[in-house]
Amino acid sequence: MDDSRISFDQWGDLYADRVQTMRKSEVRDLFAALSRPGVIALSGGLPDISSLPLDQVAECARRCVAVEGLRSLQYGNSDGRIECRKTICKILAVQGIEADPDEMILTSGSQQALDFLGRVFLNPGDDIICEGPSYLGAFQAFSAYEPSVHTIDMDEEGIRTDLLEAKLKELASQGRKPKFIYVIPNFNNPAGITMSMPRRLRLLELAHQYNIPVVEDDPYGLIRFEGEDLIRLKSLDSNVIYLGTTSKIFAPGLRLAWMVAPRHFLERINLAKSGSDLCTSPFNMILAEHYFNEVDWQAALEVSKSRYKERKDAMLAALEEFFPQDVTWTKPEGGLFLWVTFPPYLNTEQLLPRAIEEGVAFVPGVYCYPDQRISSSMRLCYSFETPERIREAIRRLSLCVQDRMALYRAFLEAGALPESSRSESYSSAREC
Amino acid sequence: MDDSRISFDQWGDLYADRVQTMRKSEVRDLFAALSRPGVIALSGGLPDISSLPLDQVAECARRCVAVEGLRSLQYGNSDGRIECRKTICKILAVQGIEADPDEMILTSGSQQALDFLGRVFLNPGDDIICEGPSYLGAFQAFSAYEPSVHTIDMDEEGIRTDLLEAKLKELASQGRKPKFIYVIPNFNNPAGITMSMPRRLRLLELAHQYNIPVVEDDPYGLIRFEGEDLIRLKSLDSNVIYLGTTSKIFAPGLRLAWMVAPRHFLERINLAKSGSDLCTSPFNMILAEHYFNEVDWQAALEVSKSRYKERKDAMLAALEEFFPQDVTWTKPEGGLFLWVTFPPYLNTEQLLPRAIEEGVAFVPGVYCYPDQRISSSMRLCYSFETPERIREAIRRLSLCVQDRMALYRAFLEAGALPESSRSESYSSAREC
Repeated sequence: MDDSRISFDQWGDLYADRVQTMRKSEVRDLFAALSRPGVIALSGGLPDISSLPLDQVAECARRCVAVEGLRSLQYGNSDGRIECRKTICKILAVQGIEADPDEMILTSGSQQALDFLGRVFLNPGDDIICEGPSYLGAFQAFSAYEPSVHTIDMDEEGIRTDLLEAKLKELASQGRKPKFIYVIPNFNNPAGITMSMPRRLRLLELAHQYNIPVVEDDPYGLIRFEGEDLIRLKSLDSNVIYLGTTSKIFAPGLRLAWMVAPRHFLERINLAKSGSDLCTSPFNMILAEHYFNEVDWQAALEVSKSRYKERKDAMLAALEEFFPQDVTWTKPEGGLFLWVTFPPYLNTEQLLPRAIEEGVAFVPGVYCYPDQRISSSMRLCYSFETPERIREAIRRLSLCVQDRMALYRAFLEAGALPESSRSESYSSAREC
Repeated sequence: MDDSRISFDQWGDLYADRVQTMRKSEVRDLFAALSRPGVIALSGGLPDISSLPLDQVAECARRCVAVEGLRSLQYGNSDGRIECRKTICKILAVQGIEADPDEMILTSGSQQALDFLGRVFLNPGDDIICEGPSYLGAFQAFSAYEPSVHTIDMDEEGIRTDLLEAKLKELASQGRKPKFIYVIPNFNNPAGITMSMPRRLRLLELAHQYNIPVVEDDPYGLIRFEGEDLIRLKSLDSNVIYLGTTSKIFAPGLRLAWMVAPRHFLERINLAKSGSDLCTSPFNMILAEHYFNEVDWQAALEVSKSRYKERKDAMLAALEEFFPQDVTWTKPEGGLFLWVTFPPYLNTEQLLPRAIEEGVAFVPGVYCYPDQRISSSMRLCYSFETPERIREAIRRLSLCVQDRMALYRAFLEAGALPESSRSESYSSAREC
C-alpha cells in the first residue's frame, strides 16, 4: 500500500457529493475561539445557566436512577417518553400553545429537528425560504441536503412579507414551490429582531395561499425580558411545525428538544428519528421531567432573564459610548443576540483575526447568510459575559473598527480604495 | 382551505424522494409488540441491565452535577469531551485495541455513527457491501441515502470471503466500486455468528486490494461468554472504521457510542455531527466517565454475561426439545441473538401474527436482508427473558411452527401447495 496516500486521505474519491456542500462548522470554530486565554467571547450562543439550582438538579439526576431505576438506563421509543411529552405540554401552555402530546416528537436538540426537516423535505436543488440573516446552524443542517436557499430581508418588524410575496410569485412563475419557510419569530438568531403581529398574520396568509409548511423555530420565546409577548405562529395555525428546546430554559447539555407538528408529518419524522439515533436519551428525558415538575424552573429563568437584560443594556450603552456614528445595531427585547451593521466597506470577517488578537470574538455576519452576501455586519452575544467584560469587549472591538475605518478614509483621501472594499457593492449590502 | 386534505397529508407532494426508500422502522414495531400483555418478547435487542449497581450509578449521576457543576449542563464540542474519549480508550484497551483519543468521535449511539457513514459516503445508487443477514437498523440508517446494498452470505465462519471476492470482481468489471464494507465480526446481529481469524485476514486483504474502507461494528465484542476472544479488525488494520457503544456494557439509555477512525475521515464525520445535533450530551459523557472510572463495570458485566450464557443454553435446550428435525439454528459464543433457519416454504413473517397471538414475538429474517430475499428464518433474542420464560416461548413458537408445517404436508399430500409457499424458491433460500 502507498503510505503517502494513507497519511493524506486515501478515501478522498469515495465521499458523497453532499460532503462538498456541507458547510464548514463555523459554530465549532467559534467554540474553539472561546477557549483562547484572555478572549472575551461575544461569539458563542451559550446561555447563562449559573442561576440553575444545582443542588436540586443534582438531586433530580440522582433520582433518575434511584427512583426510576432501569427505565432511565434502557432503550426508549423513538417518539420520546409520553411522561416527558406531557411535561413539555405544560411548558408550551405557558407560551399560549395548546399542544397534544401525540402531536410531538422529542429530538436530540433542535439541531436534530432541523436535520430531520432537511431529510424529510429536501431533494438536491429544492427551494426553501429563510429570513436573512438567520441561524447559521440551520443552514449547516439543511446544506447536507443540498437545497437552494432563498433569504428574505428583515426590517425592525421581522421578515419583509412584501419581499416574501414577491419571491413566492417569482418562484411560482418558474413552476417552483418552496418546500418550507423557516423563521425564528422571537428574537431571531442572529439579529435579535421580533416579528410583529401584522407580519405574523401575513406570513401565515401567504403560506396558506401557496400551501407551504411554516417552520417556527422558537428557542428564545420564553427569554423575553422587555415588551409584550406575541402570539406564537403555532397558536395561530395548528399546521405550523413548531420547534422548542430545553437549551435556553434549562440545560443545553441535555440535548433535549421537541417538534410539535401534524400527526401525519410526524410519522415521516419518526422514521428519520429511528434511522438516525433510535431514540433520545431516556435518562435525559426523565431528568427534564423531574426538573420541570419538581423545581421552580420559572424562578431560575427569571434570574437569567434579569441578567440578560442587564447585559443587553450594558452592551447597548457601550456601543453608544464607543462605536462611531455610522454604525447601527438592533435593540432586542429578549433572546441572546444583537446585530451590528457597519458601512458596507467594512468586512467583519477580515476584522475577526484582529479582534481576537485584541481579545474579543464575535460572529461575522456572512456566516448568517447561506450565500454569504452580507459581509459588513456581526452578531454579538450578550448572554454569557458580565456587564463589565461586555463594556471592555466593546471598547476593544471599537478600536479595531476605528482603525479599519480610519484606514478606509485614508485610502479614500488618497483617491484609492483597498481591493477588498471595492469588491463590496452598496446595493447588495442593504439589510435589516 | 380543504379540511379533508389537511386531515390526511396536505404535504404529501412535498416530501423528498428518500422518504419513499426510508425503511419502515421494524425496530419500532417490535418495541410496540413488547408492550402487549402476556407476550414473551424474543424480538427486541434489549440488554439485561439489571445487574447494574444502581446505588453507585445514582451517585455517579448526582456527582455529574454536584461535582462537575455546569460543565455537564452546558453545550459541549462536537468531538465529545477529551476526558470521555480517554476513558473509552481504556475500554478499547481491554479489547486489545490501542486507540488515540484524537482519532475518535463520540456519537449519540452507534445508530448515529451508521447514519453518518451514509451521509459522508453515499450518493444515491452507490454500492455498499454487508453481511447477509445483518443489522436491520444499519439498513434503516443507510436507506436514507438510497444505496444499492449487496449482501454476502455467511456460513459458520462468518462472511464468505470467496463470495465477497467474486462480488468485488463483478462490480469492478462493471466499473463500480463499493463505498464501504460493513461487518459485525463478533456475534453478528442477527445471526450470532463470529467471523473466524482466517476470514478476518482475508477480508482485510480484499479491502486493501480494492481500497475499500471496512466498517467494524462491534457492540457485542465484550459480551463473549464462551470460547476464545478473536483479534479485532481494528487491531489488525488501523484504517478500519471501528464502532463501539456503551449500550451493551453499561446503559443504552445514555445514547453514547464512539467511532474510531483515521483523522482525515473524522474531519468529515465531525461536519456531519455538528450539522446533525451539535454535540452528544456532556451530561451523559460525564456520567459514563464516572461509571467506567469509579465503578467495577467489568464485575457487573460478568454477571450479565453469565446470565446471557444461561439463557442461551436454555434456548438451545428448548429448541432441541421442541423444534422439528428439519429446523437448524446457530450456537453463539456471545452477544444477544441466535438465528433459526426453517425449510424454505415456511414464511416467518406470515407466522408472526399467529405467534404473537400465542404470546411470543421474534424478528422475521426478511427484515435482516435489504432485499428481503430470505423469508424462512428468524432472529431470537435470549438476553432479556428468564430461562423459564424462554423455554415457554420456544414451546409456544414450536406449536405455531408445527401447525404450519403440518398444513404444508397436508397440501403436499393433496398434490397442492399454498400460493405463499410455491413462490419460495429453494435456490434463493440458502443462507448461513
